[in-house]
Amino acid sequence: MTKVTAQMSLSLDGYYAGPQDSGDGGWMESAEAAGFFRITRWVTDAMAWRERLGFAGGEQDRNSEILAETFEAAGAYVMGRRMADGGEVPWGEEPPFRAPVFVVTHRPRETLVRKGGTSFTYVTEGVASAIEQARAAANGKNIAVAGGGNLLRQVLEAGLLDELEIHIAPVVLGAGMRLLDGGLDLGDFEAIELAPTRVVHTPRVTHIRYTVNGRAPLVLDDRGSGGGLTEAAISPAA
Amino acid sequence: MTKVTAQMSLSLDGYYAGPQDSGDGGWMESAEAAGFFRITRWVTDAMAWRERLGFAGGEQDRNSEILAETFEAAGAYVMGRRMADGGEVPWGEEPPFRAPVFVVTHRPRETLVRKGGTSFTYVTEGVASAIEQARAAANGKNIAVAGGGNLLRQVLEAGLLDELEIHIAPVVLGAGMRLLDGGLDLGDFEAIELAPTRVVHTPRVTHIRYTVNGRAPLVLDDRGSGGGLTEAAISPAA
Repeated sequence: MTKVTAQMSLSLDGYYAGPQDSGDGGWMESAEAAGFFRITRWVTDAMAWRERLGFAGGEQDRNSEILAETFEAAGAYVMGRRMADGGEVPWGEEPPFRAPVFVVTHRPRETLVRKGGTSFTYVTEGVASAIEQARAAANGKNIAVAGGGNLLRQVLEAGLLDELEIHIAPVVLGAGMRLLDGGLDLGDFEAIELAPTRVVHTPRVTHIRYTVNGRAPLVLDDRGSGGGLTEAAISPAA
Repeated sequence: MTKVTAQMSLSLDGYYAGPQDSGDGGWMESAEAAGFFRITRWVTDAMAWRERLGFAGGEQDRNSEILAETFEAAGAYVMGRRMADGGEVPWGEEPPFRAPVFVVTHRPRETLVRKGGTSFTYVTEGVASAIEQARAAANGKNIAVAGGGNLLRQVLEAGLLDELEIHIAPVVLGAGMRLLDGGLDLGDFEAIELAPTRVVHTPRVTHIRYTVNGRAPLVLDDRGSGGGLTEAAISPAA
């Protein structure tokens, strides 16, 4: 069954890149890029990723397997406009997706067909429409929300995400572009509940896969019945 | 050898409590508390925690073992003033620490001796001094930074933290008090590097323990040598 999935590499403090580049200079020299490359180092070093880009070498390890598995599971992608623009030149004639990509944008544009099975279809009717178009194209495989962060938040907020995998790089950036930084339109006593279904530990990155269970109220449960247990719960864990 | 350790329960979006309570009403009814209790539910349900509070029951599982291990490893605690104030009444005559606690505060106060081995010593000379006093009291065991978030950030920023364990509750709060929310005085091209040393997966919480390796520059490495590999790294993982 087709699931809507997303995966994102994050620093321990929740950033997927350094502070957003102003666009004035070269992106490659920006703090945004420096943070991004640190967080995704496990990706760029993985054989499964390098192979998709046509580069030799790379590490053939558990991390590479996880990337390969992620690519394999995706029958179509949904992508934000900024990511699609940023990738258009560097991804080149044969982008790594090898599947239809639906780009959520306000600017109409003809579908861009690339080699190797990748195409970019520009969807101006919003994220739900992009996901529906991706569903039709996915052939029973998953719809992967490729990013960036804005799009992923929109999909999560709209209740359209079934599965989220976070790859936590062991680094604290201190500042940057954060995946989950408010803007989810949750009430004070409301949360999005998930359930971890797989955790893979490697020295370079920790992979945690979640099923997204959706919005739920934050309520105090019966822990209060223990004679003040909830008050006493102010704990070393806090 | 004595290590300076810290552990904190966080939501997937990095919060340890809901939005900070204004103090106008009852803390127990606040959004801060609602978030806090959701995130620490695995703690309050654990037998090892309930036993320290004098409550019966609780779950005797891997999570409880991890809590027991954490208590056992600590020979002394360092604590922030807000947490110490908040806990003073609910922790009662026999607080759960069973070891000397050094509270970092601006307000001098006589040491408060409680039953069961817990004492609260108020340190007005700053966090480094509190850690040194805790070291002398720890008898070769670890110094545990008990929290809250402000104190933990100070210890991390000062380069005094050896080990950090994060307990990730599978919930997105959307807003709240965030542990790692800037304020670490890191440069744009600087980060704090860590190394994950243990990951424990349970359905209710994911425990990741890190050794803190300290500040390091963010530099592009030789991945650029692959004919544009770094540029091509703008990836589905981003």
